[in-house]
Amino acid sequence: MTERDESSKSIHLHHEHAGKIEITSKVEVNTEEDLSVVYTPGVSEVCKAIAEDESRADTLTARGNMIAVITDGTAVLGLGDIGPKAAIPVMEGKSILFKKLANVDAFPISLDTKDTEEIISIIKALQPNFSGINLEDISAPRCFEIEKRLIEEMDIPVFHDDQHGTAIVVLAALINALKVVEKEDDNAKIIINGAGSAGIAIAKLLLEAGYKNITLVSLEGVLNQSESWLNSTQQEIAKYTNLDNQTGTLEDVIQHADVFIGVSGPKALTKQHVRTMNDNPIIFALANPTPEIYPEEAYEAGAAIVGTGRSDYPNQINNLLAFPGIFRGVLDAQTQRITTEMKIAAAKAIAATIEEDELSTNYVIPNALEKRVVEQVAESVKKCVEDQHKVLV
Amino acid sequence: MTERDESSKSIHLHHEHAGKIEITSKVEVNTEEDLSVVYTPGVSEVCKAIAEDESRADTLTARGNMIAVITDGTAVLGLGDIGPKAAIPVMEGKSILFKKLANVDAFPISLDTKDTEEIISIIKALQPNFSGINLEDISAPRCFEIEKRLIEEMDIPVFHDDQHGTAIVVLAALINALKVVEKEDDNAKIIINGAGSAGIAIAKLLLEAGYKNITLVSLEGVLNQSESWLNSTQQEIAKYTNLDNQTGTLEDVIQHADVFIGVSGPKALTKQHVRTMNDNPIIFALANPTPEIYPEEAYEAGAAIVGTGRSDYPNQINNLLAFPGIFRGVLDAQTQRITTEMKIAAAKAIAATIEEDELSTNYVIPNALEKRVVEQVAESVKKCVEDQHKVLV
Repeated sequence: MTERDESSKSIHLHHEHAGKIEITSKVEVNTEEDLSVVYTPGVSEVCKAIAEDESRADTLTARGNMIAVITDGTAVLGLGDIGPKAAIPVMEGKSILFKKLANVDAFPISLDTKDTEEIISIIKALQPNFSGINLEDISAPRCFEIEKRLIEEMDIPVFHDDQHGTAIVVLAALINALKVVEKEDDNAKIIINGAGSAGIAIAKLLLEAGYKNITLVSLEGVLNQSESWLNSTQQEIAKYTNLDNQTGTLEDVIQHADVFIGVSGPKALTKQHVRTMNDNPIIFALANPTPEIYPEEAYEAGAAIVGTGRSDYPNQINNLLAFPGIFRGVLDAQTQRITTEMKIAAAKAIAATIEEDELSTNYVIPNALEKRVVEQVAESVKKCVEDQHKVLV
Repeated sequence: MTERDESSKSIHLHHEHAGKIEITSKVEVNTEEDLSVVYTPGVSEVCKAIAEDESRADTLTARGNMIAVITDGTAVLGLGDIGPKAAIPVMEGKSILFKKLANVDAFPISLDTKDTEEIISIIKALQPNFSGINLEDISAPRCFEIEKRLIEEMDIPVFHDDQHGTAIVVLAALINALKVVEKEDDNAKIIINGAGSAGIAIAKLLLEAGYKNITLVSLEGVLNQSESWLNSTQQEIAKYTNLDNQTGTLEDVIQHADVFIGVSGPKALTKQHVRTMNDNPIIFALANPTPEIYPEEAYEAGAAIVGTGRSDYPNQINNLLAFPGIFRGVLDAQTQRITTEMKIAAAKAIAATIEEDELSTNYVIPNALEKRVVEQVAESVKKCVEDQHKVLV
């Protein structure tokens, strides 16, 4: 399909069905007797049971399998701040992917406020209804504060997918790509172009996973602790990255790099840049729909492996590989936090869904709709929770 | 079934299904092509269409058929302030009744705050997602302020079911009951026992419907403008009720009454009270599960017609007769307000679902699961909106 076909088909489909989600009943209500059991007077006993022991809400109501997908509409796809109503189609899309792929009930919520404190207090007040919060398409730097505070102040898992979903899938692809090019080396030089929420989350997770030689580049230039233009999140990550203390622009640091990870904008990487990288460079050009460099060009310039965010090229690096399994895992394990260990375990699980002898330059990451991915990610998350409990016991 | 059976069956059913609702997809997601249409990149065009014209969210997303059922858990059934989690089974119950009876998507939300201003601001911030708000089980007098402010400050219909749902169904039953006892007289003496949110809403709607001789009684006594203990809502309604300026208690005003409407508590009405009423009195004893007077006793004392909130007696006065059709009607008509005219029209529509020659002392109100009720209520609401538009044109 061409992009134009997809667009008109998409408008048509959304109009035909009036959106993508509905709220349905798991029980029948045909008779007076049904009514007396699902509603009054029978339901009264169910309410009393929960009033006596709040934790029973997780098994006597839909709460135990219910999460919220929450945005304020400020950073939607590549469209930016398009407002809460215009963000709904994306949120409904995530909702049905959660349901179809992982049987997670996910209700989409677009908030009509951009105020950080108000967003935090609203989400906290919604806690009785949900066992997890997936934050989505909230602009930086507010997204950092909102996520941090909610993790501190709520006792259900909170996950900003644009940060951590992306980071997990990039790590998964990187693990396999380094294997394919036989550079399984913690000192591989990694350039992350883009120092917003995704870029910083990727850098953090790669550091936690053991990669040591990471340098971030933003539109302003290379992230270096001495630069005055760094925001507080960038300052923090700059302490642990750019070990050679480089300055300048992408052009200066891309030389002799082994890996380029782009979470920036269209055509940020040139063939000339690629030519200055080490042999067999790995290029993940994730800007969507126009990547930092098109795969054809990257290969012409000597790339060994190219991944993009697009479904019409091999190696699609898609958050869809992470979020359904992550939430399936945390809901099944009834845990209150999504830890760094879980994120790394999820990335390794995604990577491991491809057998070593199947790995190739065009196949470092599984297909986004591959069913076993959700299962294996969920299992890996549950295993982290179990291991954690063992340590605590 | 005995109450005990209903309770244990209800706990079992809620546990077996893990609650009653789920969030399901209206579209298939099996292939890469499906994904590109329901999610990225196709969905981007749908977002842009809404960003250009916000009203398109009503047809391109689930919003046009989506309402919220919102509580703070402070006045749940007869259980009182049992907290937001314990209220969820009731909210999910309403949600599935909306869906099963009227194909309205209704998401249940229990808020973890009792602060009036916070509740108002949260519900306003949720507006992008919903085309209507059903407030539920919020204690008086906060429910009045919350509903009033939301109606003023939001541009979607807001309906506090405990007030208006009850009032509509009482009016419907009263219209038919007065026919059966041949007292179709606007001057029939009506006593409303209970001056909380339901009692005051009933009084208002009956006044608007033309009944002139209404007296309210609370636990403190007869509502009389001169009493110092009246709250502001009671002061307001006292101006238009108790025309004979009576004082005292229920015992004093029940004499020569034609109608008793109880929204108070168990056994508030005695046989001796009923004996002092006019001939062929109508008794609606709506306290649940123990009514103000049991039907057997009321009939022994001379009642002509008795209605209760219970399904095991004839004439069950159940909000379920109103709320699904009301919201089906306002969603179909895409109107921003639920007006008094609509409430009266809905009551008349409910009453009219019983043919005159079918009416009897044991059949003044249709069965709660009667399918034609929803349709006829919805039609009556839509007709009100059309008539309103005609007046405006």
